[in-house]
Amino acid sequence: MPPPVARISQISKYEGQEVELRGWLYGKRSSGKLHFLQVRDGSGVIQAVVFKNEVPTEMFARADHILQESSIVVRGTVRADKRSPLGFELGVNHVEVVHEAKDYPITPKEHGVAYLMEKRHLWLRSARQNVILRVRHTVEKAIRDFFDEDGFTLVDAPIFTPAACEGTSTLFEVPYFDLGKAYLTQSGQLYMEAAAMALGKVYCFGPTFRAEKSKTRRHLTEFWMVEPEVAFMDLEEDMTLAERFICSIVQRVLDKHEREIREVLERDTSKLQTVKPPFPRMTYGEAIERLNKAGHPSKWGDDFGGDEETVLASQFDRPVIVHRYPADLKAFYFKRDPADPRVALGMDVLAPEGFGEIIGGGQREDDFDALLGRIEEHKLPVEAFEWYLDLRKYGSVPHAGFGLGVERTVSWLCGLHHVRETIPFARMMERITP
Amino acid sequence: MPPPVARISQISKYEGQEVELRGWLYGKRSSGKLHFLQVRDGSGVIQAVVFKNEVPTEMFARADHILQESSIVVRGTVRADKRSPLGFELGVNHVEVVHEAKDYPITPKEHGVAYLMEKRHLWLRSARQNVILRVRHTVEKAIRDFFDEDGFTLVDAPIFTPAACEGTSTLFEVPYFDLGKAYLTQSGQLYMEAAAMALGKVYCFGPTFRAEKSKTRRHLTEFWMVEPEVAFMDLEEDMTLAERFICSIVQRVLDKHEREIREVLERDTSKLQTVKPPFPRMTYGEAIERLNKAGHPSKWGDDFGGDEETVLASQFDRPVIVHRYPADLKAFYFKRDPADPRVALGMDVLAPEGFGEIIGGGQREDDFDALLGRIEEHKLPVEAFEWYLDLRKYGSVPHAGFGLGVERTVSWLCGLHHVRETIPFARMMERITP
Repeated sequence: MPPPVARISQISKYEGQEVELRGWLYGKRSSGKLHFLQVRDGSGVIQAVVFKNEVPTEMFARADHILQESSIVVRGTVRADKRSPLGFELGVNHVEVVHEAKDYPITPKEHGVAYLMEKRHLWLRSARQNVILRVRHTVEKAIRDFFDEDGFTLVDAPIFTPAACEGTSTLFEVPYFDLGKAYLTQSGQLYMEAAAMALGKVYCFGPTFRAEKSKTRRHLTEFWMVEPEVAFMDLEEDMTLAERFICSIVQRVLDKHEREIREVLERDTSKLQTVKPPFPRMTYGEAIERLNKAGHPSKWGDDFGGDEETVLASQFDRPVIVHRYPADLKAFYFKRDPADPRVALGMDVLAPEGFGEIIGGGQREDDFDALLGRIEEHKLPVEAFEWYLDLRKYGSVPHAGFGLGVERTVSWLCGLHHVRETIPFARMMERITP
Repeated sequence: MPPPVARISQISKYEGQEVELRGWLYGKRSSGKLHFLQVRDGSGVIQAVVFKNEVPTEMFARADHILQESSIVVRGTVRADKRSPLGFELGVNHVEVVHEAKDYPITPKEHGVAYLMEKRHLWLRSARQNVILRVRHTVEKAIRDFFDEDGFTLVDAPIFTPAACEGTSTLFEVPYFDLGKAYLTQSGQLYMEAAAMALGKVYCFGPTFRAEKSKTRRHLTEFWMVEPEVAFMDLEEDMTLAERFICSIVQRVLDKHEREIREVLERDTSKLQTVKPPFPRMTYGEAIERLNKAGHPSKWGDDFGGDEETVLASQFDRPVIVHRYPADLKAFYFKRDPADPRVALGMDVLAPEGFGEIIGGGQREDDFDALLGRIEEHKLPVEAFEWYLDLRKYGSVPHAGFGLGVERTVSWLCGLHHVRETIPFARMMERITP
């Protein structure tokens, strides 16, 4: 009877037993009577030790010539091994090649990023990319678990939308049968507002699109965003929700991946350990003062870019929340502060270490006349927003929410300079392949 | 001090206590000294009883004139009540209107579906739609939990794709900067195959698009699909995975929503109780025989449509798996059966009661030369598939997977004739609003 097939991530359950592993050869070194095969199966990497005296002569000779990334089946006994990061190694009694990988195009030598992006379908196999992808999975799961456990209902927002939230210049257009054009969504927020009136607490989580002609390290044309929206919630509660939410994601990622992030990605994880509530909160006005004091001349009415965000965030050991921006800088749907109508009841959460804005949100305008006036001021087509105005016509309530971008969050947690590595197949202005 | 704010779904925790509820007026009846207000907060509906002697005179009079869907705040004591489906009612001592809903456009009278779809942003508030949306949430959560607990990694597939899986006639095209056109994905499968070689067991779950000029009850232009893919998995294991997967979804939905589905949606849930492994499995050849025996003349080589699916599925009390279809009916990437090269190692899972195919999948061609030949036979542009061919060049392994459509699954579980109610904001050939 063949031994049970095990996954490397579960290997501790098989200590002392014989197992079969199915995977690929990640690396190899030999020393006369021993071959050390690094075997990966997607769930982890294990060292498989082939001892000359324990396998047939031909098999031992063959094992010395298996090429990188060949698919292999290995059988042997699971042994505790304190020196390995995994804690176990495999004492091999059988190794066979399923399919030989000749001239695998990604070698241990350094490759340029353009080359690696072109080979993204293979680059995913590297240890570094593997960790990033699994952190992304954990972030996405932490996001869903947070909202699911807090009584939210997942409501998928549509991707095809008839009208623009904030102008059409950064929208992707799609010819749509006899209806003219549809636009790819930039945010599900408006739909979540309708859903919050139906279900109380809702969130959407899906891809969003931005046709920006920018080639910066923070731009993707296609990225994933989660957007909670809650009826009867105000700005203060919104900030507290965002704070709890971010802390739960960071904690989950540390619990599952702290060692990998530190050792494989070489990111200083002590900078993540300090991410605990409460986050510092400041008004936009206070932020302007801070910028000036920090030698970064700014005046009321200036919008914040990456530089301002970095100066502000670098003053703290955890994310900082800036709220009550000038209304003119914000979208039409923000509620104005009754205490100061110049400002909008919006807030941004800025990640530390220069990773910039990861959350934007706030309280929505819930008064019909005020919202209608805002739509007209912004010269938006009122008829396209009639359904949205309906929410202020029939049982309007205070409500708020926010959006968090997955790629920027993963980029911050993994300490990555460019967001292109945080998504399996990045789409940018100059790239839609592979 | 004001009483704690409670959600109706959590009301049992507050028995005997005073709480505040924030929601909307769903319905109302009065009998002299008593008003019975049906209050919904998105998590449930509770009967709030306003007794003339327990509130100020003016408040009592006002409560009689609150209009449907007005937003309200109600305070009172939670009392056990065996007659209500919830098990509790509220003895009101305070009621106030937040915002009056004048002339709410959806009244208890019957409306046509076209009208309701036009008012979808409000229709979501109705009890029936509320149940369907929450079932959808449960289905989506059951899907993720199944794969997450089974060691799969979530890998988001790209939405913008450069080339077509199966012809371009049903693809949405998007003008894409200087790169010409991008196409909206119809399936993440090819990308999942690459990811399975990196992570072993993966799945994607996101929106997919089909520009079909069809106005049937099963067609949406935008729908959600989950696609697992597993390295070293063959067709038999793929069918077993699909079976376990479907059973776990059905069980979860019954655990959480059996009563609502039966009472609110009026669907016979005994038809779901029988969905247990093993599912009947038959080859395409056996299916053809069965069709003929059932008086539905069919011959080898015929493709199955809704009629054939219904005839086959109606013979069983649970989903049925049909495998090994003629290769000519299937996409280029299916592996041929070594025992009979006329057939592809593919399988479909057909839901009972005429709900049709909910899963399609199979084992992929893992041989470089065979796959290249297939791409050429199908007259597909080889250069667009070079990255996909790479997976057969570098450590190829047997692998399989499948896709499950969320909307068809929800439609089956909820017993809905048309898929348009299974997604929050349906997109069809003739509709991209609201």
